[in-house]
Amino acid sequence: MSSANKPIGVAVLGMGNVGTEVVRILTENTDDLRSRVGAPLELRGVAVRDLSKKRPGVPPELLTDDAAALIDRDDVDIVIELIGGIEPPRSHIRAALDSGKSVVTANKALLADYTGELATAAADSRADLYFEASVAGAIPVIRPLMQSLAGDTVQRVAGIVNGTTNFILSAMAETGADYAETLAEAGRLGYAEADPTADVEGYDAAAKAAILASIAFHSRVTAADVYRQGISSITPADLASAAKLDCTIKLLSICERIVEADGTEQISARVYPALIPLSHPLAAVNGAFNAVVVEAENSGRLMFYGQGAGGAPTASAVMGDVVMAARNRVYSGRGPLESTYASLPVASIATVGTRYYVSMKVEDRPGVLAQVAGEFAKRHIGIAVVRQEGAGDQAQLIVVTHLAPDGSLSETVAALEDMDAVTKISSVLRLEGTDE
Amino acid sequence: MSSANKPIGVAVLGMGNVGTEVVRILTENTDDLRSRVGAPLELRGVAVRDLSKKRPGVPPELLTDDAAALIDRDDVDIVIELIGGIEPPRSHIRAALDSGKSVVTANKALLADYTGELATAAADSRADLYFEASVAGAIPVIRPLMQSLAGDTVQRVAGIVNGTTNFILSAMAETGADYAETLAEAGRLGYAEADPTADVEGYDAAAKAAILASIAFHSRVTAADVYRQGISSITPADLASAAKLDCTIKLLSICERIVEADGTEQISARVYPALIPLSHPLAAVNGAFNAVVVEAENSGRLMFYGQGAGGAPTASAVMGDVVMAARNRVYSGRGPLESTYASLPVASIATVGTRYYVSMKVEDRPGVLAQVAGEFAKRHIGIAVVRQEGAGDQAQLIVVTHLAPDGSLSETVAALEDMDAVTKISSVLRLEGTDE
Repeated sequence: MSSANKPIGVAVLGMGNVGTEVVRILTENTDDLRSRVGAPLELRGVAVRDLSKKRPGVPPELLTDDAAALIDRDDVDIVIELIGGIEPPRSHIRAALDSGKSVVTANKALLADYTGELATAAADSRADLYFEASVAGAIPVIRPLMQSLAGDTVQRVAGIVNGTTNFILSAMAETGADYAETLAEAGRLGYAEADPTADVEGYDAAAKAAILASIAFHSRVTAADVYRQGISSITPADLASAAKLDCTIKLLSICERIVEADGTEQISARVYPALIPLSHPLAAVNGAFNAVVVEAENSGRLMFYGQGAGGAPTASAVMGDVVMAARNRVYSGRGPLESTYASLPVASIATVGTRYYVSMKVEDRPGVLAQVAGEFAKRHIGIAVVRQEGAGDQAQLIVVTHLAPDGSLSETVAALEDMDAVTKISSVLRLEGTDE
Repeated sequence: MSSANKPIGVAVLGMGNVGTEVVRILTENTDDLRSRVGAPLELRGVAVRDLSKKRPGVPPELLTDDAAALIDRDDVDIVIELIGGIEPPRSHIRAALDSGKSVVTANKALLADYTGELATAAADSRADLYFEASVAGAIPVIRPLMQSLAGDTVQRVAGIVNGTTNFILSAMAETGADYAETLAEAGRLGYAEADPTADVEGYDAAAKAAILASIAFHSRVTAADVYRQGISSITPADLASAAKLDCTIKLLSICERIVEADGTEQISARVYPALIPLSHPLAAVNGAFNAVVVEAENSGRLMFYGQGAGGAPTASAVMGDVVMAARNRVYSGRGPLESTYASLPVASIATVGTRYYVSMKVEDRPGVLAQVAGEFAKRHIGIAVVRQEGAGDQAQLIVVTHLAPDGSLSETVAALEDMDAVTKISSVLRLEGTDE
């Protein structure tokens, strides 16, 4: 059957780490790919910005700097977008979809803001839009959420989906070094980019949270809907205190279904560094690894673990999508469409309840603890743990609360800041992954 | 759109733990299912063996003891087979597929032996045959292997895919109790069936290994191809020795691509209790939980973890398949077909190399260790660890080897059995999950 079917033409846009690996697989693994697709997968061209750059392993006649013309070729059926960023990828993907070509992309920033537009274009022209590689690299997460859990009700998705920040936090926990030093080391080792803002300030994790929340809750969530806090203010003292509480600190992307007493539902989507107990499955996810925990009504808790970044792992996810999109063209099938029927609103972070860890520098004298505790009590926030560390000038008070709304906690912190006995609020972090 | 489309009729065969949960989800969750499918999912009937049994939650008019007539109804589009065993499920599924209906099943024993026949019937009538629930309950494993990794080259799949045996081995490791006692306890707690043979002797795990190997390596592997050894001979002494080696013992289902020096490839598929290092990700999978580790050329190591059995978790996997099969009918799509193009042969266990743990009762006198070591050396088997435990009458010698072919190891064990100084070979177990 395979030899009888018309070849499927593929165009690759972008030749970075992932693009290079995708081109390698497409050119090295032709026999297996043909057998799996049911027709030959033929690489028609690779669009790059700089034609003068050496590209070992790529036949020179396949290289072009005219992406639009490559996409427009009649013999291109599938466009693989690996450029990154909003433009030109958005225009390229629109052009491909509008002319009925299928698109595979790893572009989380674009998807987080423009899935609606792109999914509509794909639906209108009956083409596929696949993006497994946009979240957690090689780890299958999008397809399990969209297909395997299609008959279940997802309650929560919580993941470590940014390798740079996980590398930094793991290293800080292990070495006791401070943030700036560890970031520099991550840069030297290739785990952080020259401008690390998108990673360390949580923009990348927030884009991924938007994608996960949209799929998990059949709604449309964009990056702007996601509450976001980065890791740049985490100190060695925070990690040390976390360890004393049998916790570690991880940058989490959390998507939650909030069900009110009257049955109305909302989505919470948020990214922040949080303390999690060492016994939590995500606590053991170290270095550049990623993991996503999904909790659904019937499945219970599932965990997906693996390499969340890197050329070859991300290319694995891209190529899975390419084979599925190609098969759909051979067999006149079609991947799942965007599903946004639930249209759940996104809750403000002020209404979302979590547990908190508050660390403050205090005067070391009788009565201070009672005063501090009083501010929490006044706003009906229960305290689970209070610990004083150091003494005299170095007295540090650690408070861990029970579940509290973000709004009440912020008021409490403001009140503590006004107290004479509190010299400084050192850290306010959330605590996740406990049974409460 | 959803209201305009013709309803999709569903028939459920079998009303055990999983069937009951599937019927509950189908009847309680109609709005979400309709939105996700794009048409109403309507339960046409539930086939049971005993009509007189009370079935709370099922409208009595839906119950029938005539499965064949239910399958044959014109308004049934999807048949969910949850009876288990070979017949009548095989005939029912054939009847459904032959008349163009899609089938969702959790029946691993049937699939392990008859996937070829059933997949051909599905392909011939352009119907879907989905079976995510057949391996590892709620954990998405089949779909990731078949779709997400469709562009990668899987090297190895190793999993804990039987909850009963994992419960027993976890409990034995924790309590020090012996096998018979722990099996009885598992029965009392509902983790072992009245006749536990299929679980404890590894038949269930072998059926799942056959399914996983077939998909991972694009070949057809049946249960009879899988080397199989159960857990009934594991002793508290084995678990204690394992602990001293920083290991634990797990029943593993292993599917491996073996590449010879000349490039020819074979499959190894095997199920046995093995020592694994405590640092291995599968070592922490305890109780009735399941986990599957997949290693592929580009993705690297992935792990999938969750509840491997139980009514609701398994129903979650079944319902994911039902929604996908229903969508395919609404949108004229189609799930992936069986892929067996690689047709790799299955290697005999005699040629497969693993590391071994051999425990033997020996006479406590000088020279015995040298004699024992000599038998390994004679067959070119390297020794990694030798440990003597106890003394005098209770002297026990533990040998851990480097990689050795099963054939040479068996010869060595036979020679040791003939030695005067060796009173008894207590255990021969494999060691997996080390870097060697």
